[in-house]
Amino acid sequence: MPDSYRRPTAQLRADGSLRHLLTLEELPVQVIRSLLERSEHYARPFAQPAARSDLLAGRTVAIMFAEPSTRTRVSFELASRRLGADVVNIEVQLSSRLKGESVPDTVATLESMHVDAFVLRDVDPSVPDLVSSSVAEHISVLSGGAGSHSHPTQGLLDALTVRQHKGRIEGLRIAIVGDIRHSRVARSSWHAFAALGAEEIRIVAPRGLMPADDEFARCTRHTSLESGIADCDVVMVLRIQKERMTAASIPDEVSYFTEWGLTAARLRSAKQDAIVLHPQPMNRGVEIASDVADGPQSVIRDQVRNGVAVRMAVLEATLLRGRR
Amino acid sequence: MPDSYRRPTAQLRADGSLRHLLTLEELPVQVIRSLLERSEHYARPFAQPAARSDLLAGRTVAIMFAEPSTRTRVSFELASRRLGADVVNIEVQLSSRLKGESVPDTVATLESMHVDAFVLRDVDPSVPDLVSSSVAEHISVLSGGAGSHSHPTQGLLDALTVRQHKGRIEGLRIAIVGDIRHSRVARSSWHAFAALGAEEIRIVAPRGLMPADDEFARCTRHTSLESGIADCDVVMVLRIQKERMTAASIPDEVSYFTEWGLTAARLRSAKQDAIVLHPQPMNRGVEIASDVADGPQSVIRDQVRNGVAVRMAVLEATLLRGRR
Amino acid sequence: MPDSYRRPTAQLRADGSLRHLLTLEELPVQVIRSLLERSEHYARPFAQPAARSDLLAGRTVAIMFAEPSTRTRVSFELASRRLGADVVNIEVQLSSRLKGESVPDTVATLESMHVDAFVLRDVDPSVPDLVSSSVAEHISVLSGGAGSHSHPTQGLLDALTVRQHKGRIEGLRIAIVGDIRHSRVARSSWHAFAALGAEEIRIVAPRGLMPADDEFARCTRHTSLESGIADCDVVMVLRIQKERMTAASIPDEVSYFTEWGLTAARLRSAKQDAIVLHPQPMNRGVEIASDVADGPQSVIRDQVRNGVAVRMAVLEATLLRGRR
Repeated sequence: MPDSYRRPTAQLRADGSLRHLLTLEELPVQVIRSLLERSEHYARPFAQPAARSDLLAGRTVAIMFAEPSTRTRVSFELASRRLGADVVNIEVQLSSRLKGESVPDTVATLESMHVDAFVLRDVDPSVPDLVSSSVAEHISVLSGGAGSHSHPTQGLLDALTVRQHKGRIEGLRIAIVGDIRHSRVARSSWHAFAALGAEEIRIVAPRGLMPADDEFARCTRHTSLESGIADCDVVMVLRIQKERMTAASIPDEVSYFTEWGLTAARLRSAKQDAIVLHPQPMNRGVEIASDVADGPQSVIRDQVRNGVAVRMAVLEATLLRGRR
Repeated sequence: MPDSYRRPTAQLRADGSLRHLLTLEELPVQVIRSLLERSEHYARPFAQPAARSDLLAGRTVAIMFAEPSTRTRVSFELASRRLGADVVNIEVQLSSRLKGESVPDTVATLESMHVDAFVLRDVDPSVPDLVSSSVAEHISVLSGGAGSHSHPTQGLLDALTVRQHKGRIEGLRIAIVGDIRHSRVARSSWHAFAALGAEEIRIVAPRGLMPADDEFARCTRHTSLESGIADCDVVMVLRIQKERMTAASIPDEVSYFTEWGLTAARLRSAKQDAIVLHPQPMNRGVEIASDVADGPQSVIRDQVRNGVAVRMAVLEATLLRGRR
Repeated sequence: MPDSYRRPTAQLRADGSLRHLLTLEELPVQVIRSLLERSEHYARPFAQPAARSDLLAGRTVAIMFAEPSTRTRVSFELASRRLGADVVNIEVQLSSRLKGESVPDTVATLESMHVDAFVLRDVDPSVPDLVSSSVAEHISVLSGGAGSHSHPTQGLLDALTVRQHKGRIEGLRIAIVGDIRHSRVARSSWHAFAALGAEEIRIVAPRGLMPADDEFARCTRHTSLESGIADCDVVMVLRIQKERMTAASIPDEVSYFTEWGLTAARLRSAKQDAIVLHPQPMNRGVEIASDVADGPQSVIRDQVRNGVAVRMAVLEATLLRGRR
């Protein structure tokens, strides 16, 4: 479950423009809509060349990930480079932590080197927030995933993907399936879908992986996969980690698949034109069957493509108003 | 010995242009010649600035090496950058493999991020081939070394280096010396030399390091260094790994040097103007004496220089016809 | 204590221009002054965009650090990129050392790939010097920190920082406090301050951390913090490593802070307008109190900012006269 604390800094500048992106919670819906509009501009068909500009030429983006991640790190790296920015990658645990330096001192150091934006990921969900509260006024902090608390660019890319395929979020019935309790993806995507007017958001999980009762307000809760996704327009499957299965009273991966794996047969309880999302990396044959992951209803590759586009939009929105 | 399987995809496009570079085997000799021509264009004298262009501006090259390598990784990285491409480095074993993601899913993810080319190295020689068979039509796959099977850019750079010093490959007598059995370099260089018309290619190795009988067709086999390199124009020495010495019935490095080390004295059995190649990294004092490695007949540094030039030529040839 | 040997190569070219930067020792004072002038040009106020140019477009800088370092590595990386150069990062211990390749062969390889400058850090202080003596004439070698021997760009950035705040080095009284014995920072900053005319340089350390008697010529020695910094214009605090405390007869971090930690109270023995420097990373609550590190007399963040500027000036000075 997410660690609870209040975000100490505002994400918006006095003029209403986006300065930091730490969570989608409390973000005005027009900010979310405008980020999605701009993301559409950067989301090119697969066979076309990547979108590029030099809008951020001369800016420096520092990517500091304390957890391993190919996907999100590379996505932010390519987004930054394709806007003309310089990127420095800091593997937090491999460098100054060896010498016992604290994250705030590392950040202050990079800030002094004229870094314009920090992209941060840590198991401790307070790290991006704390950093955002200490950096100079012209600097932006973007969360690359904060503990089990939030993953705002993932929420945006999920919303963008659904909107591309369904034309809208309004009025849709969306099921989020699996380890909701520990999932930052579930929380951020829920915020995005809710802000954009989804009719019904269902959280579908084994009892032990359900979030606390005071979370996911207005969501309906289901403890069976079939009933949970019945008549849904969107089915978002979450990654399950082996060590969580105990909490879900599930002995092993095979049993998880038997009870919770999204198979083609089960997917038929959703709407006929339902789309399937997964934040990746996937455990094929555990939470999702390979033929569903690679099947005609899967939009998983669009999610990845949209991830770069969303991060370009976020970098542009936050940095263009920064230091000049 | 190399794992045997058939490459599932064609390296050439329907119009005869190069799409993937996985092996030099079966590659039409005019493709090899044209790559060497273009490599010459990029191979500048040491004291001059590196050759550069922006032919690949806007393209993205993903370098994914599952084995450690400074030389080849940096060579591909510089080749890509000097043509204006963006590069992302993925250390495969340090990132998503920690989360159990499969290589195909990682590749699909990067493909969705508009990566234009993958440069892959793995101990499993089938990895580049398998990836090449699954990527979209506008994407190229370049092998950075596949198990003990093939290392095509190494074969090209060796051929380029010999051609620069000897004016031709046709009619030359070439000895490849050392651990042929486990060497992807030996296999790829042999393909290049053979395709380009070498008169005689000798494989010179202790019995236990000889390849299987059905490999290296039309090569002559020698189990003594002196007779093996006698009257040769080119002597290519391979790296020997400690753990292979047992197979060669050689107890230690000193004994290997005694029997198989290329010394100045032994080099005199080759032609007076013979050149010496080594793919590096070198074990000085094991397979090669330092005074030979650094001596007037050594062209080892030219090989490295040519490595960048060859990779620029390959990237240009494969990517310019890709996504536009 | 520093390993003693003579630097085998000249840092200046025949025309007096700077080719390598290995140590500030013996460097003509006008070279130091001219590097500081140029550094001023690159040291922009924090809120302004980073200084940039394309003076080094087409050049390649290889950064090879055998010790972990976020600060210095990223500082050199950003300095290189902001001048338009390409950068390759080589983590020495993670790559070819696994295959037993020697540093000289790695350097020769990169040199053959048209690298224009090497930035080197190693525990062995002779590494940058040895490399500088072997590379081709058009190549520069910059030390990124050599054992406990020297860290010339740190010395320059410290001098620049003091000059910015005090208007001059001449006539100042400067105290260097802490583990002088093992500190490359102390040695290089001392050289810079001495060359630029400091009136008095004090080394202030527990007896066990004092350097050998024949080192730090003309410095005064103090074994008490209060008397050591009394009436000083500049107090430079060094990082103490846990394992050094034994040599200083200090049982633990708390005891070190009690006796040697720079607190606000103790700082009052220095001049009222004294400035405080620290090379970082800091052990807050060990060698320096947090309220001093973050207080009005601290210029620690300026040091970091100036670090990039100094490295830009050094890269420009050394590389513009190199290969063309």
